[in-house]
Amino acid sequence: MNLDHLNHSTKDAFVAALGDIFEHSPWIAEAAFAKRPFASLAALHAAMLGAVHDASVERQIDLIKAHPDLAGKAARAGALTADSTTEQGSAGLDRLSEAAFAAFHRLNDAYRGRFGFPFVICARRHGKESILRQFEQRLGNDHEEEVEAALVEIADITALRLDQRVEAPERLAVHGRLSTHVLDTQAGQPAAGVAIELYELDGDAARLVTRAVTNADGRTDRPLIAGRPVPIARYELRFQVAAYFAGRGVELADPPFLDVVPLRFAVAEPEGHYHVPLLVTPWSYSTYRGS
Amino acid sequence: MNLDHLNHSTKDAFVAALGDIFEHSPWIAEAAFAKRPFASLAALHAAMLGAVHDASVERQIDLIKAHPDLAGKAARAGALTADSTTEQGSAGLDRLSEAAFAAFHRLNDAYRGRFGFPFVICARRHGKESILRQFEQRLGNDHEEEVEAALVEIADITALRLDQRVEAPERLAVHGRLSTHVLDTQAGQPAAGVAIELYELDGDAARLVTRAVTNADGRTDRPLIAGRPVPIARYELRFQVAAYFAGRGVELADPPFLDVVPLRFAVAEPEGHYHVPLLVTPWSYSTYRGS
Amino acid sequence: MNLDHLNHSTKDAFVAALGDIFEHSPWIAEAAFAKRPFASLAALHAAMLGAVHDASVERQIDLIKAHPDLAGKAARAGALTADSTTEQGSAGLDRLSEAAFAAFHRLNDAYRGRFGFPFVICARRHGKESILRQFEQRLGNDHEEEVEAALVEIADITALRLDQRVEAPERLAVHGRLSTHVLDTQAGQPAAGVAIELYELDGDAARLVTRAVTNADGRTDRPLIAGRPVPIARYELRFQVAAYFAGRGVELADPPFLDVVPLRFAVAEPEGHYHVPLLVTPWSYSTYRGS
Amino acid sequence: MNLDHLNHSTKDAFVAALGDIFEHSPWIAEAAFAKRPFASLAALHAAMLGAVHDASVERQIDLIKAHPDLAGKAARAGALTADSTTEQGSAGLDRLSEAAFAAFHRLNDAYRGRFGFPFVICARRHGKESILRQFEQRLGNDHEEEVEAALVEIADITALRLDQRVEAPERLAVHGRLSTHVLDTQAGQPAAGVAIELYELDGDAARLVTRAVTNADGRTDRPLIAGRPVPIARYELRFQVAAYFAGRGVELADPPFLDVVPLRFAVAEPEGHYHVPLLVTPWSYSTYRGS
Repeated sequence: MNLDHLNHSTKDAFVAALGDIFEHSPWIAEAAFAKRPFASLAALHAAMLGAVHDASVERQIDLIKAHPDLAGKAARAGALTADSTTEQGSAGLDRLSEAAFAAFHRLNDAYRGRFGFPFVICARRHGKESILRQFEQRLGNDHEEEVEAALVEIADITALRLDQRVEAPERLAVHGRLSTHVLDTQAGQPAAGVAIELYELDGDAARLVTRAVTNADGRTDRPLIAGRPVPIARYELRFQVAAYFAGRGVELADPPFLDVVPLRFAVAEPEGHYHVPLLVTPWSYSTYRGS
Repeated sequence: MNLDHLNHSTKDAFVAALGDIFEHSPWIAEAAFAKRPFASLAALHAAMLGAVHDASVERQIDLIKAHPDLAGKAARAGALTADSTTEQGSAGLDRLSEAAFAAFHRLNDAYRGRFGFPFVICARRHGKESILRQFEQRLGNDHEEEVEAALVEIADITALRLDQRVEAPERLAVHGRLSTHVLDTQAGQPAAGVAIELYELDGDAARLVTRAVTNADGRTDRPLIAGRPVPIARYELRFQVAAYFAGRGVELADPPFLDVVPLRFAVAEPEGHYHVPLLVTPWSYSTYRGS
Repeated sequence: MNLDHLNHSTKDAFVAALGDIFEHSPWIAEAAFAKRPFASLAALHAAMLGAVHDASVERQIDLIKAHPDLAGKAARAGALTADSTTEQGSAGLDRLSEAAFAAFHRLNDAYRGRFGFPFVICARRHGKESILRQFEQRLGNDHEEEVEAALVEIADITALRLDQRVEAPERLAVHGRLSTHVLDTQAGQPAAGVAIELYELDGDAARLVTRAVTNADGRTDRPLIAGRPVPIARYELRFQVAAYFAGRGVELADPPFLDVVPLRFAVAEPEGHYHVPLLVTPWSYSTYRGS
Repeated sequence: MNLDHLNHSTKDAFVAALGDIFEHSPWIAEAAFAKRPFASLAALHAAMLGAVHDASVERQIDLIKAHPDLAGKAARAGALTADSTTEQGSAGLDRLSEAAFAAFHRLNDAYRGRFGFPFVICARRHGKESILRQFEQRLGNDHEEEVEAALVEIADITALRLDQRVEAPERLAVHGRLSTHVLDTQAGQPAAGVAIELYELDGDAARLVTRAVTNADGRTDRPLIAGRPVPIARYELRFQVAAYFAGRGVELADPPFLDVVPLRFAVAEPEGHYHVPLLVTPWSYSTYRGS
């Protein structure tokens, strides 16, 4: 589906295409239809947000209520919309321990008890730890602040949904990026063939996000994360340094002083560019946030 | 007990004092007694090793056989000598998982089956992983090589025992050292008050070795390990970097880009000096093997 | 002038266009004309080199003799071809001290005395110091080696001339590149607005090659050197670090610990990529050869 | 001469020994004599400063006037006291260019014209550039501030003179220190045998302060500067890196990427400890202010 097509479609087709961008709330697509044509995805999204803005507070709260609990009964029963399923899964909420489920359950209850609607957050911008921190911080808001906060999250959620759904010359969402490269400062050249793993940390546990191997330029062929927000979370990059140097014929201590080098860092800006390189010899290394 | 006193004691007292330096083999102290006086601990140790060297191969093998299995039945039954208990404990052999016990059991059996005597290693120079590697490597030796290897280990074991037992102007054993310091390259000064933990790694597990806090010079008041060999093992230093910078009033990202910085490295020379510093800003760090 | 045009031109026009690619030797263009059409600049150059290769040794030596002395009488009298003038100037041979002129004079005489032809070198691939080193090394060659060496240089010279003269879909010459970037590891971001100077060093003297200021990405808008060989020479990059940090409002010592940071390095491969970055705080910096 | 001896000497001997600690002003030693005995050099110096403090403003100004111009007629005529000669020489004022002499002459005249007494500064704490900056800053003071500033300088001058003249269990002056070490992060060990030069920079000129060679620990046997203030100045350390790596048999590019590595920095606290190390491979290096 592309923007041009939407600009020329009937109302029924338009609402059929975009009615679920806002969770269970096709009235927003209906209202936006009147503002056609849209010069850009951003204009389309603005029109939809305008409909929300112009609605009564009651209707805004109904919009919030249309969202499911995080890691709630509907999620466990497999009764979420496709988008919500993907979004909650991106933050790892589909594979919680029982203890973590219980923690979400308690927070969901406390939140609903306080505000009368479910906790809404743009899950694709967060890791699990970050969602829990947000949950606790927002429990301290008053009612009006929290309605505002939920609508901001809905704007983020729907921007990402629209961006994935509709082709357009310019993307709507500003995406983040996480990348690395490895420089062999012993040889003064890019380190090619270094195996790399990226983990997202959660307490003491580590969930593998992706694997890659450096190319002739010491970089990975694709960024480790790109084309989506980089979830606010703690990460660990692990570089197979001893295997690389051994492969080059460098004599190493036994066991080698450096073997798997871990770089542990956190992302605070999901739309930021995080370049986390490794400069390494068999006896030293350094890293920094580059761009 | 000091060297001067030993030089002037009776044979009975001498053997009472040193008879167990070589495991269950007081004949070595008896033989060394004849060489008194000793100008140094090194001379005393050389005399004892001379007695071993001059003994028949059968008696040398009896000496090897006088040693207990590593993590064997005697160890589990609490029937080791005090020295052996401490030594096996230093390598963590007193707190093995059932799987690890089973692995040692298999290796002990295989080794005894091949050589007819127990596997002897200077446990204070090794971590558990290193002992297992040595076990497997030495299983590939022929009988003569392995008698030689065991006697070398016994020389190391007894040097450390003698060094602890007898006061003398010069120490016998060359000890290793593991140290660190933290430099705040954002402020251009030593980082004071940084909490540090040193772990020994074993597979995916990490055993706390020691904790320390940096002083005004960015160093720890004492080396992290000193006055003994640094066991051949993998280590991880963890530095509480975000807490340090927050304490200095530096504004950090939320979550901070660097929080706990892990430096992972291995020691291959137990008698070497390993200085593993951290140069750090809130956005970068480097480390190297210094001295 | 483009390759397609040359492929369709008359012999006279072809030789008029390319007759001086090989110094004072239009016979080479004439010979190459017969091989038209050329699929690429590389094919054209190969045809010209083929004509040299197929010529008698006498004619090859005449080709060598058609070249002027380096920093010789013709150069001082302004009697060089335009190409030679530019090329000798690129290595700084047009602004030598009297002492340096005298050195070149002596070497030219020694070389002519030994080989009977002038010293030919692709000056655009070298700085002055490197030319002098080459001069002395090649004086040790025998006659046959030296004819060969001179023809290799002529191939390099003419590849660069052809590449500049004729437009074609693919460039003939592999060019080098010298670039930098500045990362502020105190702030964890690219250092924008840093004034940079690049000098070529010659003994204790430093000749300004170019100036640049870092952009928002901490890079220069264009590489410091690109689209040509990076002369084999020693270089110094100078970064106005104190001015940068002061501009960001960072409190500095008086005088600042780091003010102008010099990075001094040499280029050995004129066709290589040299990326020489600066990672800097007010109290520390590092650099490396990147790519 | 030692403190104990001074505590037991006659007034004549005491004044003969210390009468010139304050330039041409033996009355200060005479006044201090009454306060004997002195428990420390610091107590002796405090007594002398007390005599200055208790004196009338006229006498204080006479004390200031007793000092020579910096790089003035007396200096050029060789008519300074021995202490002043050494002190002015330590800042390089005895080897000024004519232009620099002229600059000092103008400033001396301007200063005397404004305040009626000569500019006094503790020259051993400054390099030439720093003295000129101080000169210009202090020309902006009012008369009272400047008397105060001159007396502070006299306190510094006399502390250093007393510290050199009199032996005592504790030194009076807090001295600075400038040191370095070189770590070979390619080999993971201290770089031994690296030739180092320390220069003080003055405009574009560089004056050699000292030479050293690293020992087996990668350090110099003695600090580069110790036992005296480190003059406020810009410095350059030069490390013969290519010679070191070539000596170790490391294959280098031709010319080597790194040959002489310059580290350029400034000292702002003459009594501070400046440790400026070099961590280096043939293709990378870093430095920082350590301690």
